[in-house]
Amino acid sequence: MSTPLNIGMIGYGFMGRAHSNAYNRVSNFFNTEHKPVLKAVCARDEEKAQAFANTWGYESVETDWRKLIERKDIDAVDICTPNNLHKEIAIAAAQAGKMILCEKPLAMNAAEGEEMCQAVEKAKVANMVWYNYRRVPAVTFAKQLIDQGRLGRIFHYRANFLQDWTISADLPQGGQALWRLDAAAAGSGVTGDLLAHCIDTAIWLNGSIDNVSGMTETFIKERKHTLTGKMQKVDIDDACAFLCRFENGSLGLFESTRYARGHKALYTFEINGEKASIKWDLHDLHRLQWFDHSDEGVLRGWTSIHVTDSDHPYMDKWWVPGLAIGYEHSFVHQVADFLESLSTGKPAGPTFRDALETQKICDAVLASAKTGQWTPVE
Amino acid sequence: MSTPLNIGMIGYGFMGRAHSNAYNRVSNFFNTEHKPVLKAVCARDEEKAQAFANTWGYESVETDWRKLIERKDIDAVDICTPNNLHKEIAIAAAQAGKMILCEKPLAMNAAEGEEMCQAVEKAKVANMVWYNYRRVPAVTFAKQLIDQGRLGRIFHYRANFLQDWTISADLPQGGQALWRLDAAAAGSGVTGDLLAHCIDTAIWLNGSIDNVSGMTETFIKERKHTLTGKMQKVDIDDACAFLCRFENGSLGLFESTRYARGHKALYTFEINGEKASIKWDLHDLHRLQWFDHSDEGVLRGWTSIHVTDSDHPYMDKWWVPGLAIGYEHSFVHQVADFLESLSTGKPAGPTFRDALETQKICDAVLASAKTGQWTPVE
Amino acid sequence: MSTPLNIGMIGYGFMGRAHSNAYNRVSNFFNTEHKPVLKAVCARDEEKAQAFANTWGYESVETDWRKLIERKDIDAVDICTPNNLHKEIAIAAAQAGKMILCEKPLAMNAAEGEEMCQAVEKAKVANMVWYNYRRVPAVTFAKQLIDQGRLGRIFHYRANFLQDWTISADLPQGGQALWRLDAAAAGSGVTGDLLAHCIDTAIWLNGSIDNVSGMTETFIKERKHTLTGKMQKVDIDDACAFLCRFENGSLGLFESTRYARGHKALYTFEINGEKASIKWDLHDLHRLQWFDHSDEGVLRGWTSIHVTDSDHPYMDKWWVPGLAIGYEHSFVHQVADFLESLSTGKPAGPTFRDALETQKICDAVLASAKTGQWTPVE
Amino acid sequence: MSTPLNIGMIGYGFMGRAHSNAYNRVSNFFNTEHKPVLKAVCARDEEKAQAFANTWGYESVETDWRKLIERKDIDAVDICTPNNLHKEIAIAAAQAGKMILCEKPLAMNAAEGEEMCQAVEKAKVANMVWYNYRRVPAVTFAKQLIDQGRLGRIFHYRANFLQDWTISADLPQGGQALWRLDAAAAGSGVTGDLLAHCIDTAIWLNGSIDNVSGMTETFIKERKHTLTGKMQKVDIDDACAFLCRFENGSLGLFESTRYARGHKALYTFEINGEKASIKWDLHDLHRLQWFDHSDEGVLRGWTSIHVTDSDHPYMDKWWVPGLAIGYEHSFVHQVADFLESLSTGKPAGPTFRDALETQKICDAVLASAKTGQWTPVE
Repeated sequence: MSTPLNIGMIGYGFMGRAHSNAYNRVSNFFNTEHKPVLKAVCARDEEKAQAFANTWGYESVETDWRKLIERKDIDAVDICTPNNLHKEIAIAAAQAGKMILCEKPLAMNAAEGEEMCQAVEKAKVANMVWYNYRRVPAVTFAKQLIDQGRLGRIFHYRANFLQDWTISADLPQGGQALWRLDAAAAGSGVTGDLLAHCIDTAIWLNGSIDNVSGMTETFIKERKHTLTGKMQKVDIDDACAFLCRFENGSLGLFESTRYARGHKALYTFEINGEKASIKWDLHDLHRLQWFDHSDEGVLRGWTSIHVTDSDHPYMDKWWVPGLAIGYEHSFVHQVADFLESLSTGKPAGPTFRDALETQKICDAVLASAKTGQWTPVE
Repeated sequence: MSTPLNIGMIGYGFMGRAHSNAYNRVSNFFNTEHKPVLKAVCARDEEKAQAFANTWGYESVETDWRKLIERKDIDAVDICTPNNLHKEIAIAAAQAGKMILCEKPLAMNAAEGEEMCQAVEKAKVANMVWYNYRRVPAVTFAKQLIDQGRLGRIFHYRANFLQDWTISADLPQGGQALWRLDAAAAGSGVTGDLLAHCIDTAIWLNGSIDNVSGMTETFIKERKHTLTGKMQKVDIDDACAFLCRFENGSLGLFESTRYARGHKALYTFEINGEKASIKWDLHDLHRLQWFDHSDEGVLRGWTSIHVTDSDHPYMDKWWVPGLAIGYEHSFVHQVADFLESLSTGKPAGPTFRDALETQKICDAVLASAKTGQWTPVE
Repeated sequence: MSTPLNIGMIGYGFMGRAHSNAYNRVSNFFNTEHKPVLKAVCARDEEKAQAFANTWGYESVETDWRKLIERKDIDAVDICTPNNLHKEIAIAAAQAGKMILCEKPLAMNAAEGEEMCQAVEKAKVANMVWYNYRRVPAVTFAKQLIDQGRLGRIFHYRANFLQDWTISADLPQGGQALWRLDAAAAGSGVTGDLLAHCIDTAIWLNGSIDNVSGMTETFIKERKHTLTGKMQKVDIDDACAFLCRFENGSLGLFESTRYARGHKALYTFEINGEKASIKWDLHDLHRLQWFDHSDEGVLRGWTSIHVTDSDHPYMDKWWVPGLAIGYEHSFVHQVADFLESLSTGKPAGPTFRDALETQKICDAVLASAKTGQWTPVE
Repeated sequence: MSTPLNIGMIGYGFMGRAHSNAYNRVSNFFNTEHKPVLKAVCARDEEKAQAFANTWGYESVETDWRKLIERKDIDAVDICTPNNLHKEIAIAAAQAGKMILCEKPLAMNAAEGEEMCQAVEKAKVANMVWYNYRRVPAVTFAKQLIDQGRLGRIFHYRANFLQDWTISADLPQGGQALWRLDAAAAGSGVTGDLLAHCIDTAIWLNGSIDNVSGMTETFIKERKHTLTGKMQKVDIDDACAFLCRFENGSLGLFESTRYARGHKALYTFEINGEKASIKWDLHDLHRLQWFDHSDEGVLRGWTSIHVTDSDHPYMDKWWVPGLAIGYEHSFVHQVADFLESLSTGKPAGPTFRDALETQKICDAVLASAKTGQWTPVE
């Protein structure tokens, strides 16, 4: 017997597609009790909403997210809007007793995030934030290795998220396509968009961060705004880097930018422990690089593990060893784990509360970049 | 307006899953006029067929493939059985006027394949063989580069398909799971299973092969048969390699084995032309290695192209640059192209006739391995 | 006709070997007017000095460096002692009118370095510091590409120097073998030993650094001292990272450590420019990674240039394309350039003055790590 | 105490340089009893011989190799001439009681080689052939791993030697620079020049080859001859590939060509055993790729071993872990082992007799390519 989980999706952009695909595919590969049903999609433009519904199989459309939230036949609300709408929608959805799956970053800042956490906790509704990279099999596998104590004491954590799509000064800011360049819609630039991913993975793998020293830069100072048609000051950060100290005594280096020519979505991390080290990158996401000091001396080296065997995380659900899956599967896994959590009652992370920690670190980094001071994470 | 294409699937193993997934996903990403509908799946074991139908959304089940073929509501038959059944089913399906999508290799040998070709050609039904690797974007891209003349005169073609899953002498042969080790069901070993993929790609990219000199080996001479429980001679080839000459004057080297420790599904090819060279491998299938002699001398080298940009084949349908797709997408692309071919009337390759050429080469290789003589491809 | 350049070497450790090898080899491959002659080696232990002289072909030995400096038959003094002796020897050598080739870092700190600069400038003697990595052909090639303007405006510079040889808490500090762990002999830890290399390359390739925010850590707080036999506080930095801003507006991230399990001598740098990007690492020092945005879109990617062609820097002197040289050749190239500079009168960098800039940056980084403040480079 | 070994070198081309460098360097790094002394170099052109002597430090020059061989003060003759002179010189040198170090391939064919073997064996003089790749540390390390039984039963051996320097039809043949393209001087093309290296390593690592099936091609049929100035038929093989069976039951695939655009000196080999596999290539010669099936399942993968640790073959003589050596060091190692063999009395391989086996395989491959038949190695 299976139990339907009726999804109401708000937004229909890139992330709307990624999530819809995950809902559609999960039951072909994962045998969960709860099974998502694409009940409704909501967008202000009805025609576009309908086209999206047709493509993905949503049963109905809404043009007002408040109506969607009110619908009795919706169990879970998926928030795929620009960041500046997350708080209002999430709080309303929580008050309506809906489960919430919210795109990252959680909010425009930690203060908003705190309100959101309190709302879902008060309402006791299942909640999760789409930091999908935790569930790339190689990354989940890294988590397992660390939890097994195979790395020993950790000395170093470093992560980058490098892109190059905003180098042209002719690229405008704002509007539907480019809201990520508009501080009013996005809150911050690469910090919330890219570094937040690095931070979510880092605190999951390596624990809390105590304090940070950040640096930001906006290389192109003015861009035409899509909505006004005028040249306007760019208020987001084009690049952000920070040093930090983790609670466990290890040192961290983080960097993100949209000005690293040659890299499209190069999220990489490396962890150096006393006994072993790990490296991963998103451009070859099916591989984990592993160095084990306990290997026989002459045979030591970095092993490139092709994370496609059936005893690797999630991989027993897919094909056979050697055959890779891709980016989109991380979302399928997250949906599968969320569905599983409804049966077990054990929340699937990152919850809103987990994601709030990332938000606080982002806030501290941005504050430090302004003041030039080392800044504690509150 | 869209036109349904009712699919009748025969078989429910690994390939049944891969094809079903492709039918389910194609319309979320490709806007074709014809849209597949999973009408029926057929397998002798009704319970298993029903479970498969439930997982993938097939509307009904059959336990006799002849019944499936007779059904009026089936437009296209997908043959996912062991190789020894391909011919009979395909000919019956053609006679019933059904389109046919047949797993590779086409048949047990070229003689069977010839009969199948004549049947579909006589019946004038759309037909295609699932040599899916043609539609890995990096491979399709290689085809485009060659067709543009960027490589110039071709000197060398080399391809390998290396696996390691049958090294243990304790592995049995035969039965549902291991029919690929049983010559009665599979026809040949790695030649039809793996080399056939290499050959299909090769003749697509580099044209006809004139003659071959082959070598085969069966490393484990006897294995217990799953069905009889007895030790029986192993009649398939565990490994096969051959030299060849292409019609265009280039030299070819091909090798496949299931005894290459460390490789799960390492299909690789490399083409050396006068002006440029290309390399690809299935373990990192989203990359194409490219060397261009016309590049400025000091800057020459092998370029690792991350084939994820929107101007790369098929990639405008998926995510954004830098985000990789996987193995299964090659099947989605093949379905999309097949559907498109129904609108354009231009067959999507490889057709049965195309696949027959691969079969003839396999036959010549196996014959040469027996006689020790260079053998022409008829 | 050739002119001998009589070398007096002080020290006989790892760097003494590397330099001696360079002197011995240069004339087999480079046709310079001046040709080094190994006149004398100096070390306190006469027996060891003699053994070293025998191995490398030094004509004589000294046990007091002051005597070596006074010798009329010595043209150039090579300083390979621990850092705390650089200043005294260099100033004395300058006053004696000798050319000086000094191991890096130049001095214990910028104040010492300034005195040394004034001494060589007053004495007008040729002087050079052994930042050898500038002359790895791939690194020199990077410099050429940048000087040709191929990268355009620079946005990012990042460099690491990762080692793992001091992770064991049982490793002692101090004495002849481990003076690099003793602050009294080395001045600093990884900052002067490893980061100094990264900084020298960086300012050579990307210009001046304006200000820095640093962080250091000493993971193992106490180690037995080789000379005293007692546990003593470790005063060097085991790891050091810093953020910085270059004068050209680009952002920098630097990190060095001896606690990065799995890396022996992994010096890497990457530069992201508007038009192109470059990557290099010391573990595969014969390759330069190159991404050129002006390449045709679909063919863009990172090109791995095997820097072994005869039109690559220095490579016309060695073997044929495809055949790699190694670490030690960077020293041969530096000697060759120094010899050439004696003919042209144009100093071979980095001079003492050049190396002083690196020293100032190291000082600023260490100061910033103490104060927690962004610190300008004076 | 050390014993001089007086070297008489015949030839002064690329290999003359590589060997001279090895003689000059060995005593700086290896503490052997016997130490090479560059006594004389011989070439028909006295001026060039003298220039070479000046560069490398040869004490004298000869213009007639017979005179060199007669000299009392010569202990060992190094033959670096084109292949067609090897036999005559080697036999004369043996008769004069000289040790012989002969460039590879041993001879124009096996018949010549047999005569040479008999000559050195009759004269009881130390003899060695310069198959230098055995002594690249990563290759020597591979040999150790195999000898320790770590690979278990061997299933597959494959090797390539790919170059691209003769693709242009404008390249002439013959003369001093291009004798390798002239069958009269070289005997064969890539078979003797490149495949011979692959075969020498293969039989060293994997034992005897029983029979072969070869294929050769000459892509450019005519080239201007440097000496005659006329277009002449090209008689060498531009490309050669062969299948083979080793005595131990494993299958082999070999290929060499000078028409593989993008590869300068890409010698690669891979060995697949029951328990482990090994890969190596000359373009990154300091790395060995290693796959060990006994590793814990989830952590299995190909390990890239940076063969620079002091417990790797020869590496204790050079620098510190992480710092690579290059191509030329393989010759230094070969000289060191030859010198050592003079003390131990245990011949350093490959001897003439060892190299004759490679010659026989080359002969069989070329014969098979002509007849189209599988050909036994005699």
